[in-house]
Parts: sequence; C-alpha cells; structure tokens
Amino acid sequence: MTMGSEDPKALARRIVETMHAKGRAYAFLDLEILDVGPGHAKARMKVREDFLNSHGICHGGLIFTFADTVFGFACNSRNEASVGTSCDITYLRQVAQGEILTAEAKEIHAFGRGALFDIVVTDHDGEKVALMHARSVQTGGSFLPEQESPA
Amino acid sequence: MTMGSEDPKALARRIVETMHAKGRAYAFLDLEILDVGPGHAKARMKVREDFLNSHGICHGGLIFTFADTVFGFACNSRNEASVGTSCDITYLRQVAQGEILTAEAKEIHAFGRGALFDIVVTDHDGEKVALMHARSVQTGGSFLPEQESPA
Amino acid sequence: MTMGSEDPKALARRIVETMHAKGRAYAFLDLEILDVGPGHAKARMKVREDFLNSHGICHGGLIFTFADTVFGFACNSRNEASVGTSCDITYLRQVAQGEILTAEAKEIHAFGRGALFDIVVTDHDGEKVALMHARSVQTGGSFLPEQESPA
Amino acid sequence: MTMGSEDPKALARRIVETMHAKGRAYAFLDLEILDVGPGHAKARMKVREDFLNSHGICHGGLIFTFADTVFGFACNSRNEASVGTSCDITYLRQVAQGEILTAEAKEIHAFGRGALFDIVVTDHDGEKVALMHARSVQTGGSFLPEQESPA
Repeated sequence: MTMGSEDPKALARRIVETMHAKGRAYAFLDLEILDVGPGHAKARMKVREDFLNSHGICHGGLIFTFADTVFGFACNSRNEASVGTSCDITYLRQVAQGEILTAEAKEIHAFGRGALFDIVVTDHDGEKVALMHARSVQTGGSFLPEQESPA
Repeated sequence: MTMGSEDPKALARRIVETMHAKGRAYAFLDLEILDVGPGHAKARMKVREDFLNSHGICHGGLIFTFADTVFGFACNSRNEASVGTSCDITYLRQVAQGEILTAEAKEIHAFGRGALFDIVVTDHDGEKVALMHARSVQTGGSFLPEQESPA
Repeated sequence: MTMGSEDPKALARRIVETMHAKGRAYAFLDLEILDVGPGHAKARMKVREDFLNSHGICHGGLIFTFADTVFGFACNSRNEASVGTSCDITYLRQVAQGEILTAEAKEIHAFGRGALFDIVVTDHDGEKVALMHARSVQTGGSFLPEQESPA
Repeated sequence: MTMGSEDPKALARRIVETMHAKGRAYAFLDLEILDVGPGHAKARMKVREDFLNSHGICHGGLIFTFADTVFGFACNSRNEASVGTSCDITYLRQVAQGEILTAEAKEIHAFGRGALFDIVVTDHDGEKVALMHARSVQTGGSFLPEQESPA
C-alpha cells in the first residue's frame, strides 16, 4: 500500500513512531528506535534491574518481548496492518543487568498475506545473544488511516 | 534433589513462592499463583491497558512472558536450578484488555540435564489462546540453598 | 465441507486412504493407518535399517517425515485441501532399528484458514520419543473431488 | 578436537563423506555434497516423483529430511559426535517435481556442548523455499575414531 508519493523509508519511520507512541506495552521496555525501513526495524534497550528473573539474569520473556516488538514494527512498516502468529526463540547466553541489547528484524520472505521474519538480538560487542524466527499475517486494512497520508 | 523429608509438592510451592518474590521482572505481570508441583505450575493474570500493543490488543510478548514465567516456575520446581534454552509459541487468537488468562506448564519429558515443557494459555472460558513448547537445561546447583532446607 | 450424508469419520477415512495411495513419498515409510477422524490421524511404522543415519540411529528426518505425514492426513481429513506451513519438533530420545513407532496428530485449534496440530510420536511402550507442533493452511478447494462424493 | 595436523576443512570433508557413505537413510535423497567446512555443509538434490505427497507437490517431510541431513553433516564436521535435539522449519512455497534444491547449514553459535544452526533451502534461482533453525548437542566422543587419523 503506497501513501501517495511518500518515500517507503519515510513512511516506515512514520508508522513505527506512531506505533511506538500508541502501544502502551512498549513503555516498559524504554527502547530507542535506531532504524526502520520497509520490512525492517532495529532498536536498542538497556537491561534494568526490574528485567531480572529469580536467577538474577534478564528474564527470557523480556528478551522475547524486545525482539517481538521490533518484529511488530518491521511487519507493519509497509502500512499493511499485521500481527504475529507464531515465533520461535533460541537463547544463546544469559544476559546481565546493565547490558545494552540491540534487536534487528528483517523480512525474509512474504507469501500471500503471510511473511517470515528473522530477528537477531546482539550485545554491546555485536555478539548474538538470541535468535528468533517469527511469522506474521496481514489482518486487512492499513495501520495508518488514509486521512493521515501526507500526499 | 530431595530436601530432607519435605513433600515434593510443598517444596515446589516454597521454591516458586521464593522465585516469585525474588525475580523483579515478575512484578509487571502481577500474576497469581494457582497451583505448583514437581514439574508443574499454573498461574493467572489480568490483561491491563499497559499490556496493549499499537493495534489495541494484548502484546504477544506479554502473553509469551506470562507463559515463560510459569514455565520458569515449573522447570525449577524440583530445586534443580534451570533456565530456558528455546521456546516456540503459537497465538490462537487476539486477546483484549480486561481478559483473565491462565497459563499452565507441564513437564512432558526430561532427558539428562534437559527437559521439555508444554505450556497452555487459556481464557476465562477455558478456551486456548496460545500454546508454547519450551526447552530447559539445568545449570548445576540447587535453586534454594541447602541451609534453607527445613530437614 | 460436507460430502452429502457421509459420516465425518468415514469421510476422513476415505480421504486418508486416498491420500496414502496417491502420494508416492509415503511408500518409503511403509506405514499402517490405525485410526482417522475429523482433525485426527494415527499411524504406525517400523524403523528399518535404511532409516538409520551415520550414528546408527534412526534419522531424525524420518521421524519428522513420519510425524509430518500423519499431520498431513489429519489436516486434510475434513476434505479442505491443506498444506503445512511451519513445524517444530523436539526429539526426546534416540530411536533404534527395529523399533515400532506410533504417531498421533490432533487438531488443537482452527482459526480462519489456519490450524494448529499437536503430533506425538511414541514407542512400543507408549513412551514419547518426539513431539511436534505443526501449522497448516487451507489452499482452497477440497481434497476429494465432488464427483467422488457418494451422496 | 584436532586430528593431528589435518586441515580443518579437509577433516570436515573426510567426516562428511564418511557419514554420507555410512548412513543408510541418506541414499533415498541421492544428494550431492557441494561444500563442507567446520560448522558448515552444503548439498544439492533433485525432487523425484517418489518425493511427492498426495497434493502432487514435494512432501514437506523430505524437504525437512534434506535440510536435516545437511545440518547433521555440519554439526559433526569438527569431529565432535553430535545429534539434533530440536528443529523448526518454515516452508516458503510449494516445491514441484524436477526442481533442484540446495541446502546450506551454518553454525550460528556454540554454547557448551550445544550449538544452533541456520539452514536455508533454495531453488535453482537461489530463491529461498524453506528455512530451518536446528539445535544440536554433543554426545561425547568423536565421529571418526582416532585410529583413522592420518597424523
């Protein structure tokens, strides 16, 4: 779905910023959006003390939520409203308080209304800490309403 | 690992309550523990407004985090310290604000230091809303230190 | 899709027997169909010498293919032509030559054109050896053509 | 595990050729090994008529088995005997008889005795047709016995 003459990367940015502002659940993560484009999103967050589980390491659920949020940004970035349907995650190492994590989601393939994304979570040194495959489906309609189009 | 003469179900309860109190990340979910036993845990939570994503439905990451937390309780319930290594989740329907979800984790199989758990998330009517398979590995040592043993 | 007045279980049986006869790839497995019904299928096979990998144990790919075949039977059993879209499998133990395996696929949930199945592979003693989650999508049309309908 | 002064890539090649010759189950696929190295393997196969399921397309189980075989080569390529523990696969499109598929497995991360591999299956034009994440664990011991070492 094109929004008049708007550049796809600019549209993606506008969509993701709108999503970020609108979704109440994202506030907890306090993430910083680094880059977005069609089928792509990248963000950063810091592991706070209230992200730790009972073993004193970052809760896997929050690593997942971080990756899943960036995936959500990427799969809505073409203004086709989409939701995740299934995901798998593999944790490569334990993550400590204070670490800065980056998650990058890339669309690998789109087929019909479905798409597959690869999401990689890395640490401060660029080493991988978790990997996710996530599948999305378009729910119909656009994410940004037509009247918000600048064209 | 046995803790003297303590009943396995009582020990599991004590471990999970300790975990719940100790892990800062669980507070956000505000969950209620319903039942625990060796290789088993069940809890309930309510979907608040700050669980919603930009589509106005419950963030999949929080459904995952809920399921993953209950899985974490179950896989530490025999006092063998364990962490999740990989998980897959399938979402069966969208979840709305105000819904009460229940997650139940059951150990399906243990092999060496590894184990596989099945986690089912259901709604107020007992209908399934998400399913997870999760794999854990023992990290060595116990969750509760020996000196806390009542035996 | 109903086929006139035919009983759903009888229709499922007729579909699966037709699938089994028609799909050339199933011959290698030499499986025996034990039970079928709407959203359900169960079959048995024996691990032959030509199922073994270089470690001298049953190739995981063949355990998967067995489970996937039974899943394929189950997801077409209502005469809505369907294909698998993604699967995850966990192997619980190694399987030796000569073992008799049973795979049972059950539909857990259907949503729109998609469905989720749970497939359990067990050994001669009913112990689980592998677990699979598999997702299907209807491709449109029926598996058995209308003219084959007995109604 | 080093085998005297043998080059890691030459050792990997020797291991995979030995595996390929030894595992009876690989014969059905009739695959051609294209490249191997430490933590890496790549092979090609042709979709025959006896690979087709009842829909007349390549059985997903055989695409999985192909990918899983190449993964097995890659995870044993350092002469640490290893087996797969869990995998997930996503099919990106249907595959027809006569197509030539290539599968490439790469080790993404190793942690303790475990490792994670990414396996990509592509068609004649290099387009992706299936993606797999697979996890392995070392079982102890080497794949090639010491007396076979050339050093």
